[in-house]
Parts: sequence; structure tokens; C-alpha cells
Amino acid sequence: MAADITESVPESPWWGWAPFTPGGALKPATRAVLAERLGIDPGAEIAAPPPEPTAAELPESALDAEALGALAAAVATGAVSQGAAERMRHAAGKHTPDLIRQRSGALLAVPDAVVSPGETGEIAGVLAACVAHDIAVVPFGGGSSVVGGVTPLRGAHRAVIALDLTRLDALVELNEVDRTATFEAGIRGPALERALAERGFTLGHIPQSHQQATLGGYAATRSAGQASTGYGAIAELITALTLETPSGTLELGGRAPASAAGPDLKHLAIGSEGTIGVITTVTVAIRPRVTAKTYGAWAFPSFEAGARAIRALAQDGAKGDLPDVCRLSDEEETELTLAQSEGAPVRLLRRWLRSRGIDTPALLLGVWEGTDADTKRRHRRAAKLLKAHGAVSATTRPAEAWDRGRFSSPRLRDELLTIGVMVDTLETAASWTRLAETHRAVAEGIRGALAGGPTAADPPPAAVPAAVPAAVPAAVPAAVPVLGAGPTDPPPNAAAPALPTDPLPCAVQGHISHVYRYGASLYYTFIAAAEADPIAQYERVKAAANAAILASGATITHHHAVGTEHAAQLPAEIGELGVDVLRAVKRELDPAGIMNPGKLV
Amino acid sequence: MAADITESVPESPWWGWAPFTPGGALKPATRAVLAERLGIDPGAEIAAPPPEPTAAELPESALDAEALGALAAAVATGAVSQGAAERMRHAAGKHTPDLIRQRSGALLAVPDAVVSPGETGEIAGVLAACVAHDIAVVPFGGGSSVVGGVTPLRGAHRAVIALDLTRLDALVELNEVDRTATFEAGIRGPALERALAERGFTLGHIPQSHQQATLGGYAATRSAGQASTGYGAIAELITALTLETPSGTLELGGRAPASAAGPDLKHLAIGSEGTIGVITTVTVAIRPRVTAKTYGAWAFPSFEAGARAIRALAQDGAKGDLPDVCRLSDEEETELTLAQSEGAPVRLLRRWLRSRGIDTPALLLGVWEGTDADTKRRHRRAAKLLKAHGAVSATTRPAEAWDRGRFSSPRLRDELLTIGVMVDTLETAASWTRLAETHRAVAEGIRGALAGGPTAADPPPAAVPAAVPAAVPAAVPAAVPVLGAGPTDPPPNAAAPALPTDPLPCAVQGHISHVYRYGASLYYTFIAAAEADPIAQYERVKAAANAAILASGATITHHHAVGTEHAAQLPAEIGELGVDVLRAVKRELDPAGIMNPGKLV
Repeated sequence: MAADITESVPESPWWGWAPFTPGGALKPATRAVLAERLGIDPGAEIAAPPPEPTAAELPESALDAEALGALAAAVATGAVSQGAAERMRHAAGKHTPDLIRQRSGALLAVPDAVVSPGETGEIAGVLAACVAHDIAVVPFGGGSSVVGGVTPLRGAHRAVIALDLTRLDALVELNEVDRTATFEAGIRGPALERALAERGFTLGHIPQSHQQATLGGYAATRSAGQASTGYGAIAELITALTLETPSGTLELGGRAPASAAGPDLKHLAIGSEGTIGVITTVTVAIRPRVTAKTYGAWAFPSFEAGARAIRALAQDGAKGDLPDVCRLSDEEETELTLAQSEGAPVRLLRRWLRSRGIDTPALLLGVWEGTDADTKRRHRRAAKLLKAHGAVSATTRPAEAWDRGRFSSPRLRDELLTIGVMVDTLETAASWTRLAETHRAVAEGIRGALAGGPTAADPPPAAVPAAVPAAVPAAVPAAVPVLGAGPTDPPPNAAAPALPTDPLPCAVQGHISHVYRYGASLYYTFIAAAEADPIAQYERVKAAANAAILASGATITHHHAVGTEHAAQLPAEIGELGVDVLRAVKRELDPAGIMNPGKLV
Repeated sequence: MAADITESVPESPWWGWAPFTPGGALKPATRAVLAERLGIDPGAEIAAPPPEPTAAELPESALDAEALGALAAAVATGAVSQGAAERMRHAAGKHTPDLIRQRSGALLAVPDAVVSPGETGEIAGVLAACVAHDIAVVPFGGGSSVVGGVTPLRGAHRAVIALDLTRLDALVELNEVDRTATFEAGIRGPALERALAERGFTLGHIPQSHQQATLGGYAATRSAGQASTGYGAIAELITALTLETPSGTLELGGRAPASAAGPDLKHLAIGSEGTIGVITTVTVAIRPRVTAKTYGAWAFPSFEAGARAIRALAQDGAKGDLPDVCRLSDEEETELTLAQSEGAPVRLLRRWLRSRGIDTPALLLGVWEGTDADTKRRHRRAAKLLKAHGAVSATTRPAEAWDRGRFSSPRLRDELLTIGVMVDTLETAASWTRLAETHRAVAEGIRGALAGGPTAADPPPAAVPAAVPAAVPAAVPAAVPVLGAGPTDPPPNAAAPALPTDPLPCAVQGHISHVYRYGASLYYTFIAAAEADPIAQYERVKAAANAAILASGATITHHHAVGTEHAAQLPAEIGELGVDVLRAVKRELDPAGIMNPGKLV
């Protein structure tokens, strides 16, 4: 059974991606891998999250009666809330430092109010009220940003509100002739797919955040779904959108499938992260509902050999042969995946691969979606080309297992963070030419940073709140010793303690998950015992990864977006002049600077 | 034999798309069609163009010695020319009103000098000199704009130069692993394809202007090639570009095949028409050189039936089954095409189609490009689907004939304009839902405007120079009487003279030539006897077509761009606020406003 993409999950803003499960969802095999391979003893039970703050503990709202009145008048069919639970629920997205702070019991900054329009037509009035009363506006959809995109920063303004868009969740129009659907921007992934499925269609944009994220959030962050290799990323799926700005309404696109009427301004709104206006409706290209999936998995002798094969498939395969979901794990990710599924089938698989000369496999998963005849034909042709490039079949089971569990791994982060495990993901994308080098550099950068420990030469960034470390759960083990980076690029502290041979002090696993003709994404999960100051540890890893990414000429983010997390790296990515252009657009559309201050630029 | 896309044609800026051919290239069959069906007697021989103006006839350059010196210093490896021939050669693109004026002997405005950098690195210095000396800059590539995009307007500035980029024609890098190629922006279509062909690749972007246009021009105008259905339009083919602006250099794209690092600023440069900077290098995605083409042609009982069939192919066919070149002519274009090829095969074809119940066929041409096995497989599957939608095979000959003659029809315009025939093309694109209605409205708008004659209720726009009409060649026949529009939307002058039954006073033929999942382009050729004031006639037609396009909710241009021609319609297309955004970007990158004034915004 593939995961049901129309299934809603209960909201769980305080507990990451899914509601807290007493006892936790950590599989015994995962516990064993953590203990035996990484020297991390996840002995403690998954801890319940600390109680939410009470109203008395929250700072008083900075909004005066006049401002509140103006906001309430603007959302006649909606609501303005200053309740503690509502304000807390809009204090953060899923940014790991925020989750760590929340779990430590630290009080995050909260918006002064949560404004929830009941109709898209009310948003212009909200923005006007915020300009009049000097209030910063943080557009808030699913709250699934992992880069601080919804952090309630007030900038230079008197107050800050979260503009919660999730009541705006209607299907406005479904055009079966054009194969397009217009939704209000606050609709979440499962509801969107449900509305389309009822009419026989799908969007096919299913990022890992799908169960909570909203369509407007996808657009605002230039998101890519797990099947973007087949369906295209959100920028390719959007045919039109409406952007409500403090300077007025922009209706972008929608007249034609293509146009030469000047620059395509849709692309200024896509990826704008709420800094120039609020995306209120989005029109997307839709496709017939998936009636069949064909799965395939293949092993390669190395990650680089696998990457060469999927490049050949992307560049020389017939159109459509590339699977819609195309994921190539590196050797470490493959090994950790197999280790968590040990048993007779995995033993058999290992033996089969060794017999074919593959000792440290890199596993490729493919899912072809569509109709039965179509997916089988595409799969057959792709398999032939992959085998010609050294692929060895690994049955269809690993791909089926991925599809079943596609939404569960982000939940694992929440579990692990409570038992002293530092775990997070980061990502980039690079051209094929630079892919292998980028992959090595980023993985080594992360390893070096984790190995460096809290005494590393590079001091951690200053942003860590001093109050946090003490509040981290007691189960945090002592910092583990060094894992040296590869021989080509030793970390600054390579002269420090000798490398332990077993167990390894961290895991840095990578994969390709979005494939293009001229390159691919790279996605990393790093796991280590949490240090006494886990936020400093996190920031050390991110700084090393960012430096490696930029030095490799790759992009600072393929699909997580910029938010507060990558804002410092944006000038290196698009140039100071590029940032100036974004600022000029912002001055025009948001002259008072109220829109999502502190994000992107 | 398909047209050779690597073949250069001699430059012919003064004579439209190809050098003047004494005697002209008008086929007897075309003459017969004009005479018998349109009542146009192209009796006169194609006239030689009037002599080019001499230096003495040109206005004196407004550049003083100091400004000239600064320009010359900026282009150490290039040239600054004030020669009459050079200035005339940069006076206009291929905008029909300009061609009419040139052929009438009228003197067009000319730039004060032509500056031709020898290296891309010199462009920054040229822009600095122009800012310092208050000189407007018109970037000039192939000079193939049909919308006044290279008209040497000086705006509020002291002088204007044409910045000729055609010396910048190097292949900078070809990356066979990434399948990308970086070129200097001034390389023309055939030279670009030659450079790629030598290495086994193609860009596949072949607009009708290909033999003269440059890659930078493609990017600046958001161009679409004739095979864009398969290869994608230029916006999809560009992976990176460099934009030199008066405020500095923007390096856009190139780090990765996709990114979520804020809005994609490439899309601000693509379609910017020289108004914010000069595109100096462009990196494009390339594909293996075409080794086989498969052709197909089918007739449908009507244009609408054909449109339904290609929509089904675009939406429900397997990926790649849609032909790379996909053109569906309406009934009138089909009839005029067949009429120009009368003979035994066409008679046989007509009989065969009638036997299948098709009396007024709409002809679909398809070209599948790639390898032999691949194109045949795609063609076979597409043919099956098309037949299920009522297509009747019309042999492969019409598609082969189109491919042979793909560059010749624009040349016909130049011939016809000298013998009293008003002929031009215009285009739009619309969603499938609105396609048929848009097609009818635009065609009827054009017919009504041509029928209205110079005494129509709507006065022609005021921009027509009074000196021109008298200079039009003597062969211009008297204005022809009215052709009524269809019953659903009578033109304002429907109460005017009764409809003639034979011959028709004008031809308005349309086709789809770029197909997308959610809509298609619409391209029109209109032909009528030229009136005494052909520019007023042209502008009447354009005004009617523009009004019909905008009222239908379609785009004012699918691939011809904005230039001076559609600047007045841009606010209707993207909104006043959209125009404000473009202006804000321009203020940031071109604070002195020297870049291509009067175009786009």
C-alpha cells in the first residue's frame, strides 16, 4: 500500500510533524542501529513535550485597542485571536533550533495576535490596517517551514501578527478542459488532493511536508515535491496566482500557457516567502488521477556509478522513462536503511549483490505513476537503460517500502530530539559536472563539524540563547569524539584525538531525490549524539555545510527556501545586485516594509 | 530535404529577411491565388528597394567629440561607426510599418552611432560612458524584431546609440556532461547551430527569424521556436545568463538545475527587451543532434475538431508523443495552402478527404525529431490517438514541404509589400477553454478592420507620418470593399456596402503552432490589397486584433514580444501594478533610464 496522499493528519504544531505518541514510534531496529553503529544509547523513552506556556507566561500583546479594532473590522468573516494557544501555535515552523528550544521549555517569541481571514477579499483590508498601525505581517500557512520562514519577527515595527491563511481552503474552480485548478492559498496538501481526486485528478506535488503544508506555502517557497522529477517542481506547475500586496493586487499569469509580454512576473511571487505580499489564490496544472504505480529498485557499486546511470536516463532516455520519483541513496544511507530492515530478505539481498560484485551498494528507488500500461512500459525501458549502466535489480520492495513510509521519517526527528539525538536534514542541488564533488564536500563538511565538537576552533555563531542548553533533556550523552573527514579535506581540528574505529560518532547520509537534465538535488540527513549545547552544534553543522555548498558553486537551497536560515547566504547565491533588485521590488510593493521582515533579504 | 538550420543567409537589413531578388520570388501559383481569390492583381514586378540614403541625407549625429571619444575608449577591440550605411542598418528591425516606410523612400530615425564591442567585457564601459554622456542605448542583435524593439528612440536623452552585439558570437563553453552550452549573446541562429552540430548537439530553438536573430535577442524577447512544443520555449532552455546593467553585473542561474533561493531572477532578464541591461552571455540546455525526423499530416473536418485532437495528445498522450513541431491550420489557411500547390496530388487529396466527409479540411502537420527508432515510435502512437479523434491521414508531404520552406514565408512579405499587397502576421496564445472563441474573435476583428476601409468609423491611430502614403508604389489598387465579419460579432460598419461573394477582399488565415498542456498559440497571416495609406490600414488591423485578444482574455503576444508595438497593451495584460514593478526594477538597474527607452514600459 502506498501512502494515502489524501489522508489528513491531526494538526500538531507544538510537536513537529505529527501528534505526540506516548512511548514514541522509534522502531527497535532503529534503536539498535543508533546504539551499535553510532554509539548513541537511546535508552530514554520518548519524552512528552513540555507543557505549553499559559497565557500568563506569554508577553503582553503590543497591539492597542485601536489596532485590534482595525484588524477585527478587516476580517468580518474571520477572526482575530490573542489566545495563548493560538499565539504559541504561530510562534515557529519546524526549524530544528526552534524545536530544540520548544522541547527545552524555552519561551519562543510569539506574534501579538493571530489574524485569520475568512475570505481572500479580506486580506487587502488586513494589510491596510497593518500599514496604518505599523504592524508586521507574517503569512502563515501550514507552519512547515524548516528555515525560520514563519518566525514572528517584528523588525522595526510596533507589533507583529501571524496572518493565518488556513481558513482559505476552497477549490475555486476546476477546469477539466484546461486541466487546471484554482484554489485558495490556505488549502493543505491532503485536502487539495482530496478535492482533485473527487474529480479524477491529482496535482502530484507531494513534498515530505505535504500533510501539513499549504498550496500558498508551496508557491511562496518555490517548493519541490518528492515526485518533482516527473511532475515538475511547483514553479512549473503554477499557471497563475494572485498576490495581495500593500500596494495593491497583482494578478499574474492565467491568460495563456506562454507569453512574451515582458518578463514573467509570476516568478517574482514564486519564492518571495511572504516578503512582498500574500499569495491568496493559486492556479495549478493538474493531471489525471494516478491509477497505477510501478516500482523498481536497483543497486550500483557506488553512488557515483548510480548518478551516472540516472544522468543517462535523464538525458538519453525517452521522454517519461525517468521515474516520477527518482531517489539514489549514497553508500552510507543505503547501509543505514538496510541495517534498519535486517532479516532474511535483506541478508539475501546483500548476498545477491555481493555475488554481483557490489559490496557497498548505492540504492536507487524509482516510482512510475500513471496508468498501468504506461507505467509498465516506462519502467521496462528505464530498467534496460539502467542495467546497461551497471544497475543490479534489488527487487521492488525497497521502493514500495519508501512509498509506504514517505511521511514518517520527518516525525522521527521529533522523537529523536527528545532523547538526546541531534538529527536534521539539509539540502542543495548542483549540475552533474559538480555533483560528486559537491556531495563529497558537503558530507565532509558536516562530518568535520560534528567531529569538531563544542571545543572546535571555529566558535559557534552567537545566536544561541544561553538559557537553552541547561533545559535539554537529561538523557543527552556527553559529546562524542572526533570522526575525521576524508583525506582530501581534513577539518581544522584534524590533529585532535585519534579516530575511533567503532562505533562511528555520527552518520551523514545523502541522496539524490530530484533529477533534471542538467543536474540533481542532494539531500543530507545527519545524526549524532546531541552535545550539551545542541543549537551550537546544529549551527556549526549548518555553517560548515553552507560553506561547502557555496564553495562548490551549488545552490544554498533546492527546496527548503531561505527564511532566516539562509538569508546571510543569499548575496553569495544571487549577488549583492540581485538582492538589491529584490529590495527594489519590495519597496514598490511593500513601501512600509511590513511584509515578513527579516526573511529572504 | 529539411531546411538546413546551420546555413547562414547574407545579411539583408534593408530588405527584410533576405537579400533582394531581382524579379522577385513570387511563385506563379501564389500570384494566381492572389488574383483569383483575393482580387489582388500582383501585376507589377517585384520592385527593387529604393536606394539607401546617403550620408548627406542623414541627420547629423548628436554625439560630440567627447562622447565619441568615451565610446571609442570603451570598445578598444571593437568599433564606433557613424557611417551612413551602418546607421541606416540599425534604424529598424522588421516591423511592417518600418518596412513600408523604408520601401516608400521615407527616412527613418537613425541612431547617432553604432557601437560594436569586440569583447563582452567592454559592455560595462559602454554603459558607463552612456550614463556619463546622457546617451540612450538600444541593444541590437539580429535586428529581427517585428514589434519595434530596436527602434532608435532617444527618449529624454541627448543622443542614442545602437549597441551592435553581433561581434560577440563565440561559443564560450560546451559542457557535454551537463548538456549545456554557453555562448556570447550576439551569436546568430545558424552559427549557434553550426557550433553545436560540430560537437554532436542542437539547441532546437528555431524561430522563423532564426537565420538572422541572435541568442541574446531570443532571451530578451522570451522567444519561442517553431519546435517549442517539443524543445520548450527559450525561457525553458536558458539555464543561466549574464545581464550587464548600468548598476552592475547580474549573474543569474547556473548554480543548479533548480533552486528555492528566493525568486528566480532569470525570469526578470528573460523578456526584458533591453530595458534593464544588456544580455551578454547565455547558457542553454542542449540535446543530441537530430539524426532522424518523422513527418505526419492529418486533416480534420474543422479547426476546432483538430484543436480537440491535439489537446488530447498534449494532455493524455504519453510524454513525447506530441510532435516537436505541431501546427494546425484553420480551414482558410489550409485552403490557401492547398490552392498554392494545385496539381494532381492536391486534387487526389481533396477527393480522398471528401470521400471521408471532409469538405473544408483543417490540416495538422507534425514533425518528430530525434533518433530513427524514437521518432517512429512516437509518431505511431500519436497517429493512433489522432485517428481516434477523427484525423484522416493526408500523407507526409505537407509536413515535409513545410520543413523545406520554413524560412521562406517571411521573405514573401517583403516581396508583396512592394507590389501593393498588405501582408503581415500577428499572434497570441490562449487556454484551451478560450481558444476557439479567441480564434474567432481575432480573425473577425482583423476581417472587420480590413473590410472597414480607410473611411471606417474608428479613426486610425495618429502615429502615421503624413509623408508616407504618397510614396507607396504606384501599383497599390484602390481600397477594396467590405468583407463582413461572422454573424456573432458584426464589425461597427456592418451596415456598410453588401458583401461581395467572389473574390474575397482579404485573407485571414490562422494556425496553432505551439502546443502546451493547457492551451496553445494562435498565429494569423492577413493579406489584402494595400490601401492608399497602408500604415493606417496596418494600424487599424492591429488595433482590432489587440482589442479582440484582450477582450478574449488571451495574451497580447505569445512570442513576438512587446517593443513599441504592444507597450500600450501591457498594462491590460499585467496590470498597472505589474508595470510599476517593472519600472521599479528598471530604476534600480538603470537609474539614468538610458536602456532602450520607449520599449516595453
